[in-house]
Amino acid sequence: MPSGRLLDTAVSGREYGEVQRFYAHHMQLLDGGEAEKWAATFTEDGTFRVPTLPEPVRGRTALTAVVRQGAEEREKAGEVHRHWHGMITVDSRPDGALDVVCYALVFVSVKGGSSRLHRVCVCRDVLVREEGELRVRSRFVTRDDMP
Amino acid sequence: MPSGRLLDTAVSGREYGEVQRFYAHHMQLLDGGEAEKWAATFTEDGTFRVPTLPEPVRGRTALTAVVRQGAEEREKAGEVHRHWHGMITVDSRPDGALDVVCYALVFVSVKGGSSRLHRVCVCRDVLVREEGELRVRSRFVTRDDMP
Amino acid sequence: MPSGRLLDTAVSGREYGEVQRFYAHHMQLLDGGEAEKWAATFTEDGTFRVPTLPEPVRGRTALTAVVRQGAEEREKAGEVHRHWHGMITVDSRPDGALDVVCYALVFVSVKGGSSRLHRVCVCRDVLVREEGELRVRSRFVTRDDMP
Repeated sequence: MPSGRLLDTAVSGREYGEVQRFYAHHMQLLDGGEAEKWAATFTEDGTFRVPTLPEPVRGRTALTAVVRQGAEEREKAGEVHRHWHGMITVDSRPDGALDVVCYALVFVSVKGGSSRLHRVCVCRDVLVREEGELRVRSRFVTRDDMP
Repeated sequence: MPSGRLLDTAVSGREYGEVQRFYAHHMQLLDGGEAEKWAATFTEDGTFRVPTLPEPVRGRTALTAVVRQGAEEREKAGEVHRHWHGMITVDSRPDGALDVVCYALVFVSVKGGSSRLHRVCVCRDVLVREEGELRVRSRFVTRDDMP
Repeated sequence: MPSGRLLDTAVSGREYGEVQRFYAHHMQLLDGGEAEKWAATFTEDGTFRVPTLPEPVRGRTALTAVVRQGAEEREKAGEVHRHWHGMITVDSRPDGALDVVCYALVFVSVKGGSSRLHRVCVCRDVLVREEGELRVRSRFVTRDDMP
């Protein structure tokens, strides 16, 4: 970050809390299969790169389709997924965009079965503000178990 | 939430942080077996519905008894439980009560053994303010592994 | 805490958020193997007591060495570790130092293998402010699986 300090002082405590709240809503929408509402937390042409998809997903229509398909597959398998973001750092760019790095866990439960840790990931997001609300402009996820 | 926005703007960043701190204390009391102090973080007639109990628990005396019994069972089994709340969303009601939805994990460790993920849950709380402090008026927990 | 209230009102919401951000940076440095930068988030003579080390580690030089050795061992084993702090409570001392109690999880992933929960711990830190930034003056970690 520009100041060389541990915490970017251009990011206020209020804004840090807002990022935490943003991810909470964002993940509740994702895990609840609310595909369109989740896609709306990205910018119109937001991008999403994860190791489990062969290429980056771009734009809300494509993001919606990916989540809808995932929700249907989980439904069929009798599974529930929960995404946790934590250990969130936030640094600001001169234009006000936020560089977020955080850890991400995925837990899977089988209905009538048990719950397990599925994935440990790192998520790198660029968040921007549109109409006063945070949105994901780009996401890049890496998985700790992948070489 | 009333505004139709992603984040309820009637909930301030300060209040969001207070909810996070509240749960941290609340869970440290629970896992530490501080049954009475934990029950005191509910309202006098607070309710607690979890799938592992046959019916809702109501009131501090009953809440204390449930936690005391659980603590004794864990002590006997040589187990330690840790409850984690995360991905917390907070929306406010016109009367100032707070609707909280969050994910909840339970980890179990066996002394001299190992640690494991036990449960993945969703917790729906109504929090109210009494004498300036947050308290749980009602809690409803669901388990992801239960059909 | 002095007031007998659940949350120490001498700790502001701003300061609570700062503690959260501090740990996020701190753990990203640790897990990323940034040994010297991580040690710099302790005071010059900061101490670190964990059950996996035979005696307390004192001072940045020793802290750096411990983390560097750990990073080399993980590299050799093809492992990635992620430390999560959560359920954080913060109380203030009259001199401004902060008593932090939090839960700590360690996840381990094997590259080309899978991810697993490794440890469930409790971390007790004393944080102090130096040149405006939080630093760990002392850390005492206990493991839930150890008798």
